[in-house]
Parts: sequence; structure tokens; C-alpha cells
Amino acid sequence: MQQRGPSSPSCSTSDCFPLGTLNTAACGSETSAEPQKREPAGLFRMRPIVIFYGFYLLCFGLGVACVVCVCLWNSKWRGGFAWDGSSLQFNWHPVLMVTGLVVVYGNGAVLYRIPLTWGQNKLPWKLLHAALMLLALVLSIVGLCAVFDFHNAQKTPNLYSIHSWIGIAATALFAMQWVAGMAGFLLPCSPISLRKRLKPMHVWLGGSILTLSIAACISGINEKLFFVLKGINMTQPYSALPPEALLGNSLGVLIVAFGLVVLKILSTREWQRPDSRPEDMAYTPLLQEENE
Amino acid sequence: MQQRGPSSPSCSTSDCFPLGTLNTAACGSETSAEPQKREPAGLFRMRPIVIFYGFYLLCFGLGVACVVCVCLWNSKWRGGFAWDGSSLQFNWHPVLMVTGLVVVYGNGAVLYRIPLTWGQNKLPWKLLHAALMLLALVLSIVGLCAVFDFHNAQKTPNLYSIHSWIGIAATALFAMQWVAGMAGFLLPCSPISLRKRLKPMHVWLGGSILTLSIAACISGINEKLFFVLKGINMTQPYSALPPEALLGNSLGVLIVAFGLVVLKILSTREWQRPDSRPEDMAYTPLLQEENE
Repeated sequence: MQQRGPSSPSCSTSDCFPLGTLNTAACGSETSAEPQKREPAGLFRMRPIVIFYGFYLLCFGLGVACVVCVCLWNSKWRGGFAWDGSSLQFNWHPVLMVTGLVVVYGNGAVLYRIPLTWGQNKLPWKLLHAALMLLALVLSIVGLCAVFDFHNAQKTPNLYSIHSWIGIAATALFAMQWVAGMAGFLLPCSPISLRKRLKPMHVWLGGSILTLSIAACISGINEKLFFVLKGINMTQPYSALPPEALLGNSLGVLIVAFGLVVLKILSTREWQRPDSRPEDMAYTPLLQEENE
Repeated sequence: MQQRGPSSPSCSTSDCFPLGTLNTAACGSETSAEPQKREPAGLFRMRPIVIFYGFYLLCFGLGVACVVCVCLWNSKWRGGFAWDGSSLQFNWHPVLMVTGLVVVYGNGAVLYRIPLTWGQNKLPWKLLHAALMLLALVLSIVGLCAVFDFHNAQKTPNLYSIHSWIGIAATALFAMQWVAGMAGFLLPCSPISLRKRLKPMHVWLGGSILTLSIAACISGINEKLFFVLKGINMTQPYSALPPEALLGNSLGVLIVAFGLVVLKILSTREWQRPDSRPEDMAYTPLLQEENE
């Protein structure tokens, strides 16, 4: 989903065609047949930033809406929360997974894209990125503990559905990603060459974990609504779309919209933080040669 | 999920920092603190291509495995196929959605990334891309007709679950994407400026549709296995992981793996087709100024 932004200026041949096999080709390849129109410098600089903040606000708003929606569903329609092996303990599972593995995770992922942070030393933002991701991971693990404890108390097997397989894979990959990210990008002993190799994998795996999380959330919401809205004991079935079903479905739509906005922000090249500037290097106590 | 490849050479400042606010920064930003090691020209050129073909073969193999798996599941465990309003008609739904909206779609999406096609006129590949996507769309629509007909025959409501909402959204967006792509990139009357604006949206929406398809498939497999493996009439429940459950779950894993490989291929910048070369321009009958 990588793309060149509409305002991206021309590039050197070697950068446009890194394979080096087509070095006579024109650059700014998608657009070079048309004469370049020059925009005023102020507009040229500001427009991508304004568009970014539009997407960032959308991302933040959708994240808040996801958390509100999942809390409302489980407190108002599912009876609230407890940690006693009952269905009230299960209710922590959707709340913590959506909050941790989707919303906090997504906000942690787009942190470096905020242009406000670009003029500053990278290290505090790197620590904040790691801290947000650790919070997301802890919330997700507690969310998994909630459902494992509930299943064990109810004598229900664990990890048999494809929902659980995808969800556990997302959390396990996330844990590995966090440990590898910590060791590779924050420890002073990690060599630059390792960071160079690690970063593309870190970025790709980050997006993949979010894709897995979205699939796990949608299948989980679908499963839960079929389980609880069976149309018995004077309640309406899922197929009649009672208010709880509408709320659950809306939560699913919000999660998908949030995920797609996060993936859009991550994949847009002109919104990536420019690194390796002298001021970044000067204020990096953990690793003076910091440049990943 | 965009990334700079490890072998990406240095770039011009304006290309690295398109916002234009940090024009004193170094280029090749992630790696420039370390002295560049020069590789032999042959290795430099070949390695990304070899890695690409490794991913492409993986993508192709996973796609074939998905189709085999979903056909096997529905023919051997679900009783085969018919178009008579019975559950045998429903069986077309997973087969056609997985084949169309995931496998053919994914293969159509990565078509331009195949380096073998780069030295050739783009138009035949563009027509093949459009044809593959049309095939994927037709398969998906027939797959939707199968489930709508089945529901109507069984007097079951349509479009109430979050699985169906996500699936119908993916297909509707895909249809819009195909029409907009046809009008924007193939019709001679579409202006270059429109193509420039359309392309980033086309690329991003393409990846988003695949993400939606994956979420719809996982939730659909999960729902179907809970519906049919209830542990009644001497059959084992889903929670006991009978062979059918293992096959269905494996299909889900294969779909996710296929989707992530496709998204990896789409997001890797050095695997993108370089456009606007003179030979592309010379053999483009539909639009002589072809360069999108």
C-alpha cells in the first residue's frame, strides 16, 4: 500500500529504481510525462501536513469511538465486569483486546509520523513508542488471561477456533516484535547493521500484526453476537438486528475503519519521519550512533 | 507498511523529505550514519529480484493451497455443490469468495510487480490486470448470489452479521474500484491529472479491500464451523477439533498468510514497476500519453 504522494518532488534516478536495471528511466515516474506545475512554497509545505493531521484526528477519533463502543457494549448489554470465572470476567476480553491490540497499538504505531515530533530529538519519542507498545501488549495479555481463566472455570477448551488461532498469533507476534524492537533499536549494544536489517521487517510485521488483530476482532464480535443473541428467553436473535447487534456491528465497522486509517498513515511515504539528522544524533544517550 | 529496501541507494534531499521543511537532512536517512558498503553490481541488481521471486512463488503456492483447501472442505465435508437453494448451494459461497476476492484478486494485484514484465510494453499487462480483477469481481458476485439465494430459499434474513457487513463492503468497494480503475486508467479520454490523483487512492484502496476480504473470510470460516460442528448426531463439536475443524482453521491460516505476502509485495518500494519509460509510451494505443 506504499505510494508516492501527489506533491512528492522529483527524485534521483538511483532512488526511483533501486534495482539499478533501468537507470535511463525518468524519475517522478508516475507523473513525469506532464509538465510539473510549481505551487507556492507555503502551500507546498503545508498541504501534506494539514492532510496528515486530518487523518491523525480521524485515527484518534475512531480509536476513542472503538473504546467507548466496546466498553458500552460490555457494561450495558453484557452485565459489566468481574474477575470470578463468570461471563462477567469474559467481558474484559473484548474490552482489553480492542483497547490494547487495536487502539493503543495503532496510536503507538503512528507516533513517529506526527510532524510536530520531527524537529525534536528522537529518543523521547522512541521511548514513548516502546512504552505505548508495552502498554498495548500488557492490556492484550491481560485480555487473553481473562478468556483463558473464564474457559478454564467453565471447563471449556481453549484455542480451538480460527478466531483464537489468529488472535493468539497476533499477540505472540506482537510480543516477539516488542522484544526484538527493544533489543534491536533501544539497547546500546545492538549494531547499526542489525538495525538496518531489522527495520523493514519491524515496519512490515507491525502492519501485519494490526491486520491480524482486525481479523481476530471481527471474527470475535461475530462469534460473540451469534452466541448471545439466539432469540431465546424473550430476546431477539442476531438476525433481527436488535440494538445490541447494531452496537456490536458498529464496533466492528469502527475497528476496521481505525485499522485502515492507521495502515494508510503508516504506508504514506511523505508522512514518514526523516531520520539521521545531526540534532538527532547529538541527543541520543543510549546509542551515540543512533540512526535507525 | 512502506519501507526502504536494504539495497536502496541514496536519494536526493527533496525526495527524502518531500514536505520540504527539513532540507538540510542527510539522505538514505535510515542508514547514512554508517559508511556505505559497495556490493558487486551483479549481486546488487539480482538480489532484490531473487527475493521478489521467492515471495512471488510463496504467494502463488499459498493461493493454490487456499483454493484446494476450500474446495476440499466443501466437496468432501460439506457434501459438494448444487444451485437448488439447499446447503449445497451455500457451499459455492466460501469457494467463490476465497477464490475470487482473495486468490485471483491478490494475484491480479501483484501482477505489475513481476520484474519479467518491466522490460515490456505496459498495456498488455494493464489489460491482464483489469481482466484478472474482472474475473475476481465476477466470482465474488456469483459467490454473493449463492448465499443470498440460499438465505432467501431458507427464509433467513440477509446482511445482519458483521461478517456480512464487512464482506459486502469489500465487494462493493471492489466493484467501485474496478469501475473507477477502468475509467481512470484505461479510457483514452481520462486526463493525466486525473490519473495522478487516482493512483495513490487506487493503490491504497486495493490493499484495504484485501484487508477487508481477509477479515470477512476469517469471520466466515469461524461462523460456519460453529454452525456445523455442534457436537450433535454423533459428530464432534468444533471445540474437539475434528478433522473438518482442522481443515477449516488451516484454510484460515493459509488465507491470512497469502494476504500478508500480497501486502508485503505491494508495499515493498523496490519491487514497484518503474513507469514512464519511452518504450512504454511508444506502444500504448489506448492513450499515447500513457504514463500512469
